[in-house]
Amino acid sequence: MTKTYADDSLALHTDFYELNMIYTYWKKKNHLNKAVFEVYYRSNPFGIGYTIFAGLERVVQYIENLSFSESDINYLRETQDFPEAFLTYLKEWKFNGTLRAFNEGEVAFANEPLIQVEGPIADCQLIETALLNIVNFQTLIATKASQIKSAAGDDPVLEFGARRAHEFDASLWGARATYIGGCDATSNTRAGKVFGIPASGTHAHALVQAYRNEYQAFKSYAETHKDCVFLVDTYHTLDSGVPNAIKVANEMGDKINFLGVRLDSGDLSYLSKRVRRQLDEAGYPEAKIYVSNDLNAETILNLKMQGAKIDVWGVGTKMITAFDQPALGAVYKIVAVEGDDQRMYPTLKLTANASKITTPGKKQVWRIRSYDGLKPEGDYVALHEERPDTQDELFMFHPQYTYINKTLDDFSARPLLHDIIVDGQRVYDMPTLEEIKEYAKKSLSEQWEEHKRLLNPEPYPVDLSQKLYDSKVETIKMFEKHAKNEPAEHSQF
Amino acid sequence: MTKTYADDSLALHTDFYELNMIYTYWKKKNHLNKAVFEVYYRSNPFGIGYTIFAGLERVVQYIENLSFSESDINYLRETQDFPEAFLTYLKEWKFNGTLRAFNEGEVAFANEPLIQVEGPIADCQLIETALLNIVNFQTLIATKASQIKSAAGDDPVLEFGARRAHEFDASLWGARATYIGGCDATSNTRAGKVFGIPASGTHAHALVQAYRNEYQAFKSYAETHKDCVFLVDTYHTLDSGVPNAIKVANEMGDKINFLGVRLDSGDLSYLSKRVRRQLDEAGYPEAKIYVSNDLNAETILNLKMQGAKIDVWGVGTKMITAFDQPALGAVYKIVAVEGDDQRMYPTLKLTANASKITTPGKKQVWRIRSYDGLKPEGDYVALHEERPDTQDELFMFHPQYTYINKTLDDFSARPLLHDIIVDGQRVYDMPTLEEIKEYAKKSLSEQWEEHKRLLNPEPYPVDLSQKLYDSKVETIKMFEKHAKNEPAEHSQF
Repeated sequence: MTKTYADDSLALHTDFYELNMIYTYWKKKNHLNKAVFEVYYRSNPFGIGYTIFAGLERVVQYIENLSFSESDINYLRETQDFPEAFLTYLKEWKFNGTLRAFNEGEVAFANEPLIQVEGPIADCQLIETALLNIVNFQTLIATKASQIKSAAGDDPVLEFGARRAHEFDASLWGARATYIGGCDATSNTRAGKVFGIPASGTHAHALVQAYRNEYQAFKSYAETHKDCVFLVDTYHTLDSGVPNAIKVANEMGDKINFLGVRLDSGDLSYLSKRVRRQLDEAGYPEAKIYVSNDLNAETILNLKMQGAKIDVWGVGTKMITAFDQPALGAVYKIVAVEGDDQRMYPTLKLTANASKITTPGKKQVWRIRSYDGLKPEGDYVALHEERPDTQDELFMFHPQYTYINKTLDDFSARPLLHDIIVDGQRVYDMPTLEEIKEYAKKSLSEQWEEHKRLLNPEPYPVDLSQKLYDSKVETIKMFEKHAKNEPAEHSQF
Repeated sequence: MTKTYADDSLALHTDFYELNMIYTYWKKKNHLNKAVFEVYYRSNPFGIGYTIFAGLERVVQYIENLSFSESDINYLRETQDFPEAFLTYLKEWKFNGTLRAFNEGEVAFANEPLIQVEGPIADCQLIETALLNIVNFQTLIATKASQIKSAAGDDPVLEFGARRAHEFDASLWGARATYIGGCDATSNTRAGKVFGIPASGTHAHALVQAYRNEYQAFKSYAETHKDCVFLVDTYHTLDSGVPNAIKVANEMGDKINFLGVRLDSGDLSYLSKRVRRQLDEAGYPEAKIYVSNDLNAETILNLKMQGAKIDVWGVGTKMITAFDQPALGAVYKIVAVEGDDQRMYPTLKLTANASKITTPGKKQVWRIRSYDGLKPEGDYVALHEERPDTQDELFMFHPQYTYINKTLDDFSARPLLHDIIVDGQRVYDMPTLEEIKEYAKKSLSEQWEEHKRLLNPEPYPVDLSQKLYDSKVETIKMFEKHAKNEPAEHSQF
């Protein structure tokens, strides 16, 4: 085995360049200079119009437990040239910054900050990799689950993906994310234990094959479990599976709850209709039909369109890997930095692709509702110190196509970034998973159906305030001088 | 926070139906009956012709540490109806089975067993989910890395995906898998610490933005690090980034190793050629050009075709998520089971899709070489007790299209499934990561180029022995009676 350091410290779960930059800041005595970084993504995944923000609990857990272990320091000492004083600094390091974030479960959109980190630049820098690692995955999976749940409507959706998830953490935290996004239960027992998610599942083909006799297998299962869902496609669903399930249900009578049967292969539309008839004719109209087999939102919609008689959807691979787009692509960008004069200056990265130029400055996001409608009119991204005056009118405009705009004269504004950790101390009561799940449901139910449509949704407006827009234009002009390598007006630090 | 049980036991990292089945076996006193399960996948990913088997070290680590913790038992007691005697059985449970597997790093193909688990059926069943979870991911990522390395040729490839991996484990074990598959270093510092993989990286845009002056940022970095790769695209690569890098390199002289510059945006083909000229003209022909920005095997091939002057490839999202196919889809199927008479019987699952019918029976895989060629002629899947007689001739045929066949009269045969754990005890010396990486390179170099081509590779033969084929046909016939719900000849257990 090659595992040389066995502890589970996560301080080195960071891209190595973060440590190299922290060393430069430290050596140049800039490591305590304040900076502001923000997490956002550039487009909504899966062709849908929103995401469900997830991962905050894990982010907080990570930050609260973050420190360099003895073995972390030893590893750096043995493999790098950092001076001992720097290693001592790391050893004593604790996160002293401020973390603001959306509530977990909030409906979120592209190009707005979901998380904001403010504090000593070294602290901000160290946590970048882990924050993105967590939020990129959990938000992606909660959103995928929301898409699938939306296709399934009121039918229960069960998460069956543990074996196809990307290693253990993805299986565990992915199950949690799918529960937030709308799933009703998981097959992952550990996710049941750790998070209290209902754990679900009855038996696999292996049980039928082990007994080499389907009737005997179902009978053995029924004699040892009150709740029975029989998997009926090991040999032949219609000729063997369902008849054996019915036979066992008849024999066992009240001794079991014959909840239904599961189909895991074949033409699920055709089979489900035939199986429905078999169950009804045998006197089991309440027995449900569970299906699984590489389901995704599209297959569920199509099966429903075909009138398939399916009651419960077990979804694995396509949900837990977000198969059709397995990365959200959220980034963590520095938007403001403290100068030698202790003032905060906006900063940005230029690029030839205009829509990819970052928006400088520390921000707040406001969800705007017009009072004559009950639903959000858009999100309004403003400078952090701005407060939309609900007594006045609000001018909202598209951040690129500024001629697309509207004026609201009667509106409410709800801030979406909340203080979670302030100067290293948590100030936020973490909600329970059930509360987060409810919150997600509520946040989604508030949205216009037009933005939630699974195909070609109407884009939800994410607009900039006039002040933020003006600051962006001004900052771009200033940094264009850099691009031409002209002398900078503000050389910071 | 909702985390109710904080320990890190992995015994419940299993689909809940496994526990339900184990309970049936236990209650029916069948849990000690022997069974054989095998792991295989049905088609090679990414349109290429092979995979690199990975994940064995993690599998062994998982099994060796596997037991039910106090909190596992408490969770089951509180949420399920299992009797106390069953919980006691679980509490005392240890894996007593036998695990056979390919060497980690072995080139592998579709439809051959990569792992075989033999032992008490309860033991086999419990580990299914975790085995698939590990091997599906690590094999997928090692293979993706192999594909990308193959496109990059002799150029170094750096793994940059931590922030886009599916949570922490995927980032850590994914880095290891990419190293096995051919990558040269990782950005993930913890993967460096845990596995000894070279950790690599210099600085991000944030450093340049923090100093709000590119020259000052490069200078600060150079004054604090011997080895310098400057990221030159924060403001303008050609007008600002590269000139500033050269200026700092000129000023610092021998005080730094000016290793090169990194491009992370824009037209990498055009820019790399212009940057190459700038560096050469400034007297830095040895300075390398590093690139990153959503690279994949295809983009690397295209950039090379265009004559891009790129020396080192940093690959993130597309590799660590296996973006174009984020699941391998390996399955774990029961192939033999002990009867009441203590004999082992082959077992299979029928399905309407002929190519998906499992191949029953405990197997061994042999890599066959003809002596007049140096490279493998195919893999020969045989019953476990069969030994290809190298003194005789070997008849190999396609498992579905049996009229495609060949006869070798002078060949060698190397078995690919090795004993790793026998009756619960490890008997295999785990190789180091460097040995695994070398093994993968060697195993791949042995293959014909035709099977390794990135587009439309010639399929590598994975054939069945005559005995295994005959046994399959016979077993299918027997179980077709089940499909018609006729009386079974062998009712097992």
